[in-house]
Amino acid sequence: MPLSLIENLRQRRQKLSTLIDFPAILWAGNTNPRNFPANVFPYRASSHFLYFAGLPLANAAIHLQAGKLQLFIDEPTANSALWHGETAKRDEIAAQIGADAAYPMAELASKIPDAATIAVQDAATWTQQTQLFNRMILPQIPPQGIDLELARAIVKLRLIHDEGALIELRKASAVSVAAHKAGMAAVSKCKTEAEVRAAMESVIIAHDMKTSYNSIVTVHGEILHNEHYHHPIQPGDLLLADVGAETPTGWAGDITRTFPTSGKFSSTQRDIYDVVLAAHDACIAAMHPGVEYADIHLLACQVIAEGLVDLGILQGKPEELVEKDVHAVFFPHGIGHLLGLDVHDMEDLGDLAGYEEGRDRSQRFGLGYLRLNRTLRAGMLVTIEPGFYQVPAILNSARSHYQYLINWERLQQFADVRGIRIEDDVLVTDTDADILTKELPTAANAIEELIAR
Amino acid sequence: MPLSLIENLRQRRQKLSTLIDFPAILWAGNTNPRNFPANVFPYRASSHFLYFAGLPLANAAIHLQAGKLQLFIDEPTANSALWHGETAKRDEIAAQIGADAAYPMAELASKIPDAATIAVQDAATWTQQTQLFNRMILPQIPPQGIDLELARAIVKLRLIHDEGALIELRKASAVSVAAHKAGMAAVSKCKTEAEVRAAMESVIIAHDMKTSYNSIVTVHGEILHNEHYHHPIQPGDLLLADVGAETPTGWAGDITRTFPTSGKFSSTQRDIYDVVLAAHDACIAAMHPGVEYADIHLLACQVIAEGLVDLGILQGKPEELVEKDVHAVFFPHGIGHLLGLDVHDMEDLGDLAGYEEGRDRSQRFGLGYLRLNRTLRAGMLVTIEPGFYQVPAILNSARSHYQYLINWERLQQFADVRGIRIEDDVLVTDTDADILTKELPTAANAIEELIAR
Repeated sequence: MPLSLIENLRQRRQKLSTLIDFPAILWAGNTNPRNFPANVFPYRASSHFLYFAGLPLANAAIHLQAGKLQLFIDEPTANSALWHGETAKRDEIAAQIGADAAYPMAELASKIPDAATIAVQDAATWTQQTQLFNRMILPQIPPQGIDLELARAIVKLRLIHDEGALIELRKASAVSVAAHKAGMAAVSKCKTEAEVRAAMESVIIAHDMKTSYNSIVTVHGEILHNEHYHHPIQPGDLLLADVGAETPTGWAGDITRTFPTSGKFSSTQRDIYDVVLAAHDACIAAMHPGVEYADIHLLACQVIAEGLVDLGILQGKPEELVEKDVHAVFFPHGIGHLLGLDVHDMEDLGDLAGYEEGRDRSQRFGLGYLRLNRTLRAGMLVTIEPGFYQVPAILNSARSHYQYLINWERLQQFADVRGIRIEDDVLVTDTDADILTKELPTAANAIEELIAR
Repeated sequence: MPLSLIENLRQRRQKLSTLIDFPAILWAGNTNPRNFPANVFPYRASSHFLYFAGLPLANAAIHLQAGKLQLFIDEPTANSALWHGETAKRDEIAAQIGADAAYPMAELASKIPDAATIAVQDAATWTQQTQLFNRMILPQIPPQGIDLELARAIVKLRLIHDEGALIELRKASAVSVAAHKAGMAAVSKCKTEAEVRAAMESVIIAHDMKTSYNSIVTVHGEILHNEHYHHPIQPGDLLLADVGAETPTGWAGDITRTFPTSGKFSSTQRDIYDVVLAAHDACIAAMHPGVEYADIHLLACQVIAEGLVDLGILQGKPEELVEKDVHAVFFPHGIGHLLGLDVHDMEDLGDLAGYEEGRDRSQRFGLGYLRLNRTLRAGMLVTIEPGFYQVPAILNSARSHYQYLINWERLQQFADVRGIRIEDDVLVTDTDADILTKELPTAANAIEELIAR
C-alpha cells in the first residue's frame, strides 16, 4: 500500500530536520496577472512548497522546524464562497497535510527572525518575503547564508525521489505518453502544427492536468525552443513534438518524439533518426549509480559522431571529432536534465541542483549547455534527449571552422532532416535504468505503425 | 478591402493625437516566470500596446506623439537565433507596423521626461517603468496627472471599436462558437468536466489561438468563478461552459452556454433556462445607442423576476421584487461588461473604462457587481450574460431576509438547476444590435439538437 500523503510529508520534513538545525519558511506563491488583475495565469504553487505541503495552496506558507509543520493560511472569505465556492477551512487543510498547527498569515511575522527561506517566482510573494525578512529575497538573487544552507538541504532531498514522488511522476509520464500517441494518431489528418498540438494537449486537459512547460510542436525542429504553431504541415516533413504533462500536485513529465507527418520516414530521415536513437539507447543502457552524467552526455556525442561518420556526413575519427566539438554543430545542447516537480528540476536555484558542489559550467561549445553534472545515484530521474539539428546560424559559422571535418556536399542530401530529438524520462535504479515513458515506442517502425492506426 | 494594419494603426495614433498634447510611451511587457525563470507562462503583450503596435512584441516599447510612432526594441541576439529561430530585425518590425523610426531600448530613457505611460502587469516591466520615470508606476496604483489623461484618452478610443478591431473580434467569436459546438457534440460521451473542457479548448488550440481567460466548464455552475474540472458528470446534470478564444494579436471572445449533459433538459431545467433566455433576448433587443447599460441590467432583473414569479418561485410584483433586490438572490452578478482586447476590456484601469466619469459603483447588492455603467454608443461591444444560480451561501442568508418573497417549498422542486448562464458578445450599432456570436444557438431545442448530433 502506498504511503499516505500525511506520512509521506512527515518523512520529508523529518529528513530535512536531519540536514538543517534552523527553521525554514516556504511560501506557496500567488497568481500572476495576465492582462488585468482579475485575469490571471493558471496558478502554479512553488515547487519547494509543494514538496513539503503536498497541496497546491495559494497565498499560504509553511514553517518547518525539527520535523514539525506549521501551516499559515487565511480562512476563505464569505465573498470567496460566492465566487469560488465553499473551500476547505484552515483546520481541514491542516488535517489533510498533517500539519502540527495552523494559523492566519498575519502570525507568520513572529516566525521570521531566525528562519531561512527561498524566493518564490511571483512578484506579489517575493515582495512579501522581502518586506517580512527586511532583506532582498528575489528569484534572481542566489541564496546566501542560511538560505543557501536550506537550498542545499532541499536539493539533497529532492534529488532522490521517494515513493510518493515516483507515484506522481509515473502518472505524469503516463499522460504524457498518451498525449504523444494522440499526436501520432492525428498527424496525418492535420493541416498545421497547431492541430497536432491540439490533439496532444487535449489529452492532458482531459486528464485534468496541465502542460509542464510550453509545448514545442513544430516542423522546424531545428529551432530548439520553437513556440510557434502556425506552420502548415507539408508532405515529407518531420514533426518534432516536445510535450509533457504535469499532475495537479505539480509533478512533471517531459517527452520528445519526432515523426514523419505523412506516416513514413524518408531513407535519409530514417538514417539520421537511427543515429539519434542509437545515442538514446546507449545512454540509457549506461545509466547506473556511480556513473557521471557528463560521461553519459559524452557517450551520446560519441555515438552521434560515429553514426555521422558512417553516413559520410563527418570525416575523421569519432573521438577526435568529439574532442573538437564537431558533434555539437548538430547536437548543440546537453543530453538532458533533472526532472521532478520542475521540468528542469530545481532550476529556480540556478545550478545548485544540476551541478555537484565545486563543479561549474564548461566553457566548451559542446559541453556548456549541459544542465546536469553530477554522479548518478539510484532515485535520480533525468531526461535522456539526444538530437540532430541543422541550425542555419550554427552551420554558417561551422562552414569555415570545420570546413574539412564535415562533408558539406553529403550533408546536402539530408536536407529533409531539419531537427530530430528523442527524449525519455529515465530513473536511475540499482539495477537497469527504469524508463518511465517506455510505453511510448522509439523505434522508427513502431512509430510508423502508431501513425498508420 | 479591409484597412491594412499600417493604416489602421496610423488612424488610431492620429485619433490619440487629437486627444492629448503630450507624448505617450507604452510598454509591451515581458514573460512571467512560472516555477523557474526559464519556464514561463505563455506570453501576453499589454493590451494598450497591442492596440497601437498591432503585434505581440515582447520587451519593446512605443513612443506616440503627434501621430508619429517610434519603436524601441533590441535586435535579436545570435543566441536567440539558436534557441528561438531567426526573428525579424528591428527595421523589419518597424516596417510591418509603419513605425516612423526605430531604436534600441536603451534610447528610450531620453524620451521619458515629458511622457505619460500606463503600468504593465508584469513585475519586470513595471519595475523598469518605475525606474525610468523615477516614480511608482504599479498596476495597483490608479494613474494620476498626465498618466490619467492618457488613460482617459485611450479609453475613449478603445471603447468604440474600429473596423480593424471588429475583424479580429469576429475571428475570436467564430472560434469561440466552434469551441462551444465541439463541447456540445462531445458532452454525452464525456465522463468528467475536464473531458468537455478538452474538447472545447482543443478547437481553440487547433486554430492557433489561446483562451482569453481561464475556462469555466462545470456541473457546479452556481460557483461563479469555478476553475476546477475534476467533477464527474452525472446523468441529469447541467453543464455550464464559459469559454472564449483570443486571437494571436489579443482580441477576445467570451461565450457561455449551459447544456444538459445527457442531451435533454428536464422540465424544471427548461423552465428556468427559458426565463434566463427571455432576459438575454430582451436585453439584446433593447440595445441601442443612447440606452443606459445599467437599464439593460435592470431589464434583465425585471424579466428574471417576472419569470420566477410565473414559475411560483418568487411571490410579489416583479417591479417591487427588483427594488428589494430579491432577483439578486438568484442573479447576483452584472448583466455583462465591455469586451475588446481584454475580456473585461480595459479593467487594468479599474472602473475608468467601465464607468462614465462621475459615476461610481452602487452600494446595492443587486447592482454593485455591475462592471459597466455607460450610455451605449454604436461601436461598443459588450457581453449580455444573464443567469440563475442557487448559491448555498446566498440562499442561506436570504432565507431570513426574504422569507416571504421566495416560495422556498416551490424552489425545492428546482433542485436540479444549480447554475445557468447564457452569454453572447453583442455589438451596439445604429440599427439593431449585432450578435457576433449568433452562430451558436441559444434556444433549448437547438442546443439539444447540437448535442444529439
